[in-house]
Amino acid sequence: MPTFQLGRNTVHTVWDASLAPAVRVEPGDTVVLDTLDASYGEVARRVERGEYPVASPDLHRVIVQSVYAPQPPTGGQRGHPLTGPVFVEGARPGDTLVVEVLAVEAASWGWTGAQPNGIGLLDAELAGELGNGYRHFWDLRAGTHSDFLPGIRLPLAPFPGVLGVAPGAPGPHLTSPPRRVGGNMDIRQLVAGSTLYLPVEVPGALLSAGDLHAAQGDGELSGTGIEMEGRLTLRLSLKRDWAIDSPQLLTPPEPTALWQGGSYLVSGHAPDLMEAARIALRGLLDHLKREYGLSTAHAYVLSSACVDLRISQIVDAPNWTVSALLPLSIFL
Amino acid sequence: MPTFQLGRNTVHTVWDASLAPAVRVEPGDTVVLDTLDASYGEVARRVERGEYPVASPDLHRVIVQSVYAPQPPTGGQRGHPLTGPVFVEGARPGDTLVVEVLAVEAASWGWTGAQPNGIGLLDAELAGELGNGYRHFWDLRAGTHSDFLPGIRLPLAPFPGVLGVAPGAPGPHLTSPPRRVGGNMDIRQLVAGSTLYLPVEVPGALLSAGDLHAAQGDGELSGTGIEMEGRLTLRLSLKRDWAIDSPQLLTPPEPTALWQGGSYLVSGHAPDLMEAARIALRGLLDHLKREYGLSTAHAYVLSSACVDLRISQIVDAPNWTVSALLPLSIFL
Repeated sequence: MPTFQLGRNTVHTVWDASLAPAVRVEPGDTVVLDTLDASYGEVARRVERGEYPVASPDLHRVIVQSVYAPQPPTGGQRGHPLTGPVFVEGARPGDTLVVEVLAVEAASWGWTGAQPNGIGLLDAELAGELGNGYRHFWDLRAGTHSDFLPGIRLPLAPFPGVLGVAPGAPGPHLTSPPRRVGGNMDIRQLVAGSTLYLPVEVPGALLSAGDLHAAQGDGELSGTGIEMEGRLTLRLSLKRDWAIDSPQLLTPPEPTALWQGGSYLVSGHAPDLMEAARIALRGLLDHLKREYGLSTAHAYVLSSACVDLRISQIVDAPNWTVSALLPLSIFL
Repeated sequence: MPTFQLGRNTVHTVWDASLAPAVRVEPGDTVVLDTLDASYGEVARRVERGEYPVASPDLHRVIVQSVYAPQPPTGGQRGHPLTGPVFVEGARPGDTLVVEVLAVEAASWGWTGAQPNGIGLLDAELAGELGNGYRHFWDLRAGTHSDFLPGIRLPLAPFPGVLGVAPGAPGPHLTSPPRRVGGNMDIRQLVAGSTLYLPVEVPGALLSAGDLHAAQGDGELSGTGIEMEGRLTLRLSLKRDWAIDSPQLLTPPEPTALWQGGSYLVSGHAPDLMEAARIALRGLLDHLKREYGLSTAHAYVLSSACVDLRISQIVDAPNWTVSALLPLSIFL
């Protein structure tokens, strides 16, 4: 089956059924998408201007690539830079698009923000401690793992934060919220080897993807995973007479040994799941600061990159339980 | 260090700092608690009365044990039957009680309900399909696993659904909601080998436990895990100058090979986490019915016993993502 390649010159920043397809493929074809990071290369450009004190020649190299990336559009709300759309011949509303994730290739550098911009789960209450915010740079060149601080090492499990098809409702749609047709789902299990099923709402499906993360915990707690540019290889096909109401996913076994050392779990109990999650994360940040001497910004970044939020119980009224799990294997 | 044993004659059904201790132990001591199931033996009694068509002699044997259990109190709201309380000498408000879970011994039979009583996550919308409800009986005699239906086998990972200490506020407190001092947390990671940290709010801590589950998914979706009688062995000690704000837990690695076959994941995206969870579970029940031919009741029971709810992202406003993960290793 043929393979089609899309570069960063096909980037768009809204979901819109009226966008012209960047490529048309047949079911069974493979597409290779080069993607920009969520900052549209802005982080890299700011590093080059000296706004971040990072002196690595390799980081400089990735920056030079990024400055050739298209600038964000002026006017209107800027969305995630997405590569696409891919028109799949024969796809009709009501079909299910089958997306096999064949490969997710990471860049050599990534970043995670602890920025009190209101997006992260505890941004409001941490604003005083985070000041103007912090961006952590991750060296991804080892390919399998990245050292966070001395003695703390994360395995990488790269996946696309955004993968979806165009919504049927006409006009532009923001990229931020995920929806019935997928998009910015940030489901970390969407690694190479997984298969994603998406409900098709427009002719040709119009698939796009971007916002690759080198790693992330369930929750994406500070609002960013390990953000990076990268390359995504997908095989596309169709299922008919098999309708679904939301994105579904066949996942491979957990891709790393991340959880084989057990976990430290902090529970939150509250009548509101969001509040229970905040209690759990607050306790976990305190734990990271007290037991490992991390700063608030480091604890927040690390949690976003590897801590999982699970709903332990959703039936013991009036309090629900959300647990935040820290994998202990990251401590060397 | 001494070991103390508490039987089912020490059962109480509310949290209350004024309850007389069933035993007083020193830090470092071990307690062995025999516990009743969440129905207070009622399910077993109803089996004996022939209300459930279950003819196993072994099930009958467990019933005969259960009918000797104390009857539920008349008048007032009935809570979980808890074994305790255990007074830990020297424990003071502000301390942290350290509970090492040394062993969790399962009964020979357990049950899971798909009862439209308003507790389970989808009880309201499934009421028509569930009718008078369904109770599934699990044969736990193999010790390591239980066959659900032909071709579907669950590994067991027993843990106490309820483990906590008395709240500081005076008077009786319902056992249903978990709270700052623990209780009905239904955190499935609280298996043998884990260590639980609980904030102490009253002198002596007053620990109690009960409601053992042979297995459960993160969420306890239908409102019950695999409910059973059983025996819990705990070593108790104290930590001072190490205050915590909610229950915390050091867990061993995932106790079984449950997730080594990958998972089927259904995502839900909504502005409310509860609604996102409902979308995800609804999709997963449809999947179990369509792909495996299960009835609604069977799909609901199986989900409660082994499906995990994870918060994939809690930062992509206005929609949050909850994913329901079905472990594929259960299908033989």
